[in-house]
Amino acid sequence: MSCCRKLVITVVFSFLTLFVIAQDSTRVFPTHWFTGMKNRDLQLIFYNKSKNLSGENWVVQSADPAIKVKRFYKNPNRHYLIVDVEIAPNAQPGKYLLKFGGLALNEWSKIWFELKPRSPQNGKTRIKGINSTDLIYLIMPDRFSNGDTTNDRIAGLRDQSIDRNNYFKRHGADLKGIQNHLNYLQQLGATALWLNPVLLNDMLDRNEHGYAFTDHYTIDPRLGGANAYHELIDSIHKRGMKIIQDAVYNHVGIEHFLYRDLPDSSWFHWWPIYTNTTFKDQVLMDPYASTIDKKRMSDGWFTEKMPDLNQNNPQVASFLIQHAIWCTEEFGIDGWRIDTYAYNDLDFMNRCNKALLNEYPQLHLFGETWVHGIPNQSFFTRNQYNIPYKSNLPGVTDFQLNLYGIVPALTQEVGWTEGVNRLYGTTANDFVYADPMKNVIFLDNHDISRFFSVVGEDVAKQKMGLAWLFTFRGIPQLYYGTEIGMKNFADPDGKVRLDFPGGWAGDSANKFEPGGRTPAESEVYNYVRTLANFRKTSPALTTGKLMQYVPEDGVYVYFRYTAQQTVLCVMNPTDQEKEIDMHRFEERIKTFTQARNVIDGTVIDITNKLKVPAKTLWVGELVR
Amino acid sequence: MSCCRKLVITVVFSFLTLFVIAQDSTRVFPTHWFTGMKNRDLQLIFYNKSKNLSGENWVVQSADPAIKVKRFYKNPNRHYLIVDVEIAPNAQPGKYLLKFGGLALNEWSKIWFELKPRSPQNGKTRIKGINSTDLIYLIMPDRFSNGDTTNDRIAGLRDQSIDRNNYFKRHGADLKGIQNHLNYLQQLGATALWLNPVLLNDMLDRNEHGYAFTDHYTIDPRLGGANAYHELIDSIHKRGMKIIQDAVYNHVGIEHFLYRDLPDSSWFHWWPIYTNTTFKDQVLMDPYASTIDKKRMSDGWFTEKMPDLNQNNPQVASFLIQHAIWCTEEFGIDGWRIDTYAYNDLDFMNRCNKALLNEYPQLHLFGETWVHGIPNQSFFTRNQYNIPYKSNLPGVTDFQLNLYGIVPALTQEVGWTEGVNRLYGTTANDFVYADPMKNVIFLDNHDISRFFSVVGEDVAKQKMGLAWLFTFRGIPQLYYGTEIGMKNFADPDGKVRLDFPGGWAGDSANKFEPGGRTPAESEVYNYVRTLANFRKTSPALTTGKLMQYVPEDGVYVYFRYTAQQTVLCVMNPTDQEKEIDMHRFEERIKTFTQARNVIDGTVIDITNKLKVPAKTLWVGELVR
Repeated sequence: MSCCRKLVITVVFSFLTLFVIAQDSTRVFPTHWFTGMKNRDLQLIFYNKSKNLSGENWVVQSADPAIKVKRFYKNPNRHYLIVDVEIAPNAQPGKYLLKFGGLALNEWSKIWFELKPRSPQNGKTRIKGINSTDLIYLIMPDRFSNGDTTNDRIAGLRDQSIDRNNYFKRHGADLKGIQNHLNYLQQLGATALWLNPVLLNDMLDRNEHGYAFTDHYTIDPRLGGANAYHELIDSIHKRGMKIIQDAVYNHVGIEHFLYRDLPDSSWFHWWPIYTNTTFKDQVLMDPYASTIDKKRMSDGWFTEKMPDLNQNNPQVASFLIQHAIWCTEEFGIDGWRIDTYAYNDLDFMNRCNKALLNEYPQLHLFGETWVHGIPNQSFFTRNQYNIPYKSNLPGVTDFQLNLYGIVPALTQEVGWTEGVNRLYGTTANDFVYADPMKNVIFLDNHDISRFFSVVGEDVAKQKMGLAWLFTFRGIPQLYYGTEIGMKNFADPDGKVRLDFPGGWAGDSANKFEPGGRTPAESEVYNYVRTLANFRKTSPALTTGKLMQYVPEDGVYVYFRYTAQQTVLCVMNPTDQEKEIDMHRFEERIKTFTQARNVIDGTVIDITNKLKVPAKTLWVGELVR
Repeated sequence: MSCCRKLVITVVFSFLTLFVIAQDSTRVFPTHWFTGMKNRDLQLIFYNKSKNLSGENWVVQSADPAIKVKRFYKNPNRHYLIVDVEIAPNAQPGKYLLKFGGLALNEWSKIWFELKPRSPQNGKTRIKGINSTDLIYLIMPDRFSNGDTTNDRIAGLRDQSIDRNNYFKRHGADLKGIQNHLNYLQQLGATALWLNPVLLNDMLDRNEHGYAFTDHYTIDPRLGGANAYHELIDSIHKRGMKIIQDAVYNHVGIEHFLYRDLPDSSWFHWWPIYTNTTFKDQVLMDPYASTIDKKRMSDGWFTEKMPDLNQNNPQVASFLIQHAIWCTEEFGIDGWRIDTYAYNDLDFMNRCNKALLNEYPQLHLFGETWVHGIPNQSFFTRNQYNIPYKSNLPGVTDFQLNLYGIVPALTQEVGWTEGVNRLYGTTANDFVYADPMKNVIFLDNHDISRFFSVVGEDVAKQKMGLAWLFTFRGIPQLYYGTEIGMKNFADPDGKVRLDFPGGWAGDSANKFEPGGRTPAESEVYNYVRTLANFRKTSPALTTGKLMQYVPEDGVYVYFRYTAQQTVLCVMNPTDQEKEIDMHRFEERIKTFTQARNVIDGTVIDITNKLKVPAKTLWVGELVR
């Protein structure tokens, strides 16, 4: 086999200039690659939607030793040609000629494949990673601000509708709109932006959320395309801020060319009749699970419009992993939020995470774990279990501290396991995680009810939730509009994805500006801004340890502390002012005698008693 | 020091016969010991409530090398003399003279300390241990049956009241009453009895429950004393049944002589003002717990009447550990249920468990874990965590499968995490345990509401709970009277500890006899008896594996199976008959075509559909 191939290659080289080299619309994925990567193996997918790229006795060649062809695969669908190459250690940036074709056909295809230089210092100066010093601000790109009306509709895309009155249609916001408001975001205290996916969703409808990719290597032109994404991220990085991209490995949109024009049938999971995932993460950890339940969970489709990728197929795995690395390097991504984490093949996820962290150890990866239970959530991240499946995922979206933490704390009467006791108890279970500080905590996101509605539109409770978010362990994530009290319940989900008022020219109010906010909105906005900016420079709140006390009399007291700074947090969600005996906290208060309220700067004595008003999370920095 | 002592001993020996040897009421704990134990170190506590047992220059001697005096302690309270001895490897059973006294006083005390022979084969033929083949029947000894009215009141004890109309007073039942009903219990299917504690509780009141020990080495004479306990256990063992003793290491009753006449102040935990435990197990695992919260949990008193033992004191630890070993050997205990497990010093508990299992590897030890959450419960038993505290406790009372398992399954409407989905999800979390089959599962016990009341006195649901108990993973535990539908809620707890009707001569009804039971009671009783006896000889239900399926349409299906036998269990707690498509279960059904209902013996086809009536847990053995 290798002998024959060698012969063919020799013959081909001799007659190279005699061949007619056809220019065609063949694409290659990744579109380009980088010199200086640790892993120099690469799998290229050539695709031409209307032309066969392989045939009997066809071969693939590289004209330069910088790229060495190692192996190629003749997929049943000849629109694809998949090629393993190795980048030489000393390969220089530049464009390299790759050719493929067959002697018999007397016709060759030619692709110039570019190697760009990797960012200096392996990207360390550009890609900072996300950690507990950050405040993540989550934006749905279609709903924040329309900075460029010329891209509201893009000719050639399937969905030409745009309708701000329908929350399941596109509204026209874009990356430029986000860039226009970086001042607002940075002044608010955000240090990192997490955008719902920005890759092309060329679906018939429901193109607003972004989770149905139809082309991994195209930034949605309605959001501004790759140029706008580059510009936004460069602006973000210039401000010392960071960017998080939203990864969807589990599935694609049903209009993805890889599904419409399958490389081969093993790229997706197939069922005799349509089979949805059960959404039951339990089967993945359950010692008693059946094979069929595991298969339905992992291989069932997320929705009828989202074909489930077979990540056990090495070609699929390479495609997804390389795309993640490519985005990280191409755009300078600081962190990845990984959609529907539990639905992926978990062995694939470990390989994918490892590959990313191998190139970028500073990257943060956190998976969506919309599950119910500490054992369940911790199963999917680095944990303390001696079990056959060991996840290498650094962090998760901490749904447990939401569902069984801050939400019951502020909405339930206190009971043995209810109210603040639930928040306390959920936090006490942190011993199961390898590093709970890497978990992302939140009040709300694009899938769940807005916190302001959850707490009955009670501004005092909204502020309590926010104070918790900025003072608790982990990486806080704020959902766009939560700072101005945007509301609505998640059923249907579109209602929690409404436009940020003022994001469109001509909006009746502009909540980006102080003058556009009502007094109640201003109260919440100012509270967020004050706390988030205090947090920015607070070692205790960002990287300090946590000490929590057993709740008493409905009041939950915790401290964040370092050797330099101690911050006292007293959560009183009850309807009565509470007087707290401070002697119990001497282990943390030590020789401090006073506390400075981080909101209004007032200083009070804490040597004996502390009065905390009803429905207040009192946050004070200890002073002497 | 050792030189001086040797000199004294030599002198004493020379003049031995010249001393007046005083006979007094000095007691020694353990009261006797055994030859042939693996651990030959022993700490003896001599106690005389009215006489000093040590003084300046006093010494302790053994007259025989079979018992070697290694060290003795002059506790501040000279009513006590505490002595470390070593039993010689070749020590023979017999009575050995121990003497202590001082030359100056010219007075010696003499104790004959007996070594009895250890049971043959290190107790293996007598002590079988408890495992998942057993059905544990829990009895409150004061409330089951009064077999000996002559011990209803015992002269000299503080509490002379007896009042069957008051559920906080003693009712007079005893060990003889249990012995009289071993036929009933064995016919029902019980293979092991767990009795609430039988040690002396000489308290002013609340002597009915047994958890306030006042003398570890006295079986309560109102229960029949040591003789009755020996007779009962010997009868139990003759029947091939087993006995579980209830250990209370954390505290004693406030009338315990060790508290009333302290060996020294370090035997108990003291507080400036009375301080109750917080009952918050979380602090023990919480990475963020404060020192004071940990201290309050572990060292706070369980009640004002139950002083908290300082298990860090080596004398206390020896006293407790030796008592457990002594009981095991003396009476032939097969298993220990350990009260208030989380409230003990956990390092002490590991040492205690290790000492017991060192002597009796076949013993089962299971701790009461009335906590809320899988991480919490699993923290206290052998588990899969890589954390600094590694529990060596083999099993627990599985409160999670009660509170968040069978109770919601039969009392909640099904929801994403409610109803049968809760039971399913809790079970899926078993991956955190080292061996969940060692956990004791139950519908109710002496502390919680009776299951019949929990399910609204619905006989169908009571039967579903029982069918679950006898078919699920772990060791089932039945609470006395549950088989005849005894009811009541646990507030106040005395209401769940009412007398077994028929246990007293002259009771208006005798539920031990078929003629005494109402039709509804007979229905439940017969159901228990049928299932429990089927279980006895069922490899699948006792030692088989479990496979559970994601609940669908409110119905929860699980299998127990071995290579020899497969049992299908279909739990339909809904109000409608459900038709189940059996094809989903082919991994377990394999080539079986029919199932034999274990209750009525009817055989039905299972190759296609199975109809399960409303409110039924259908249990069938698969046949071909």
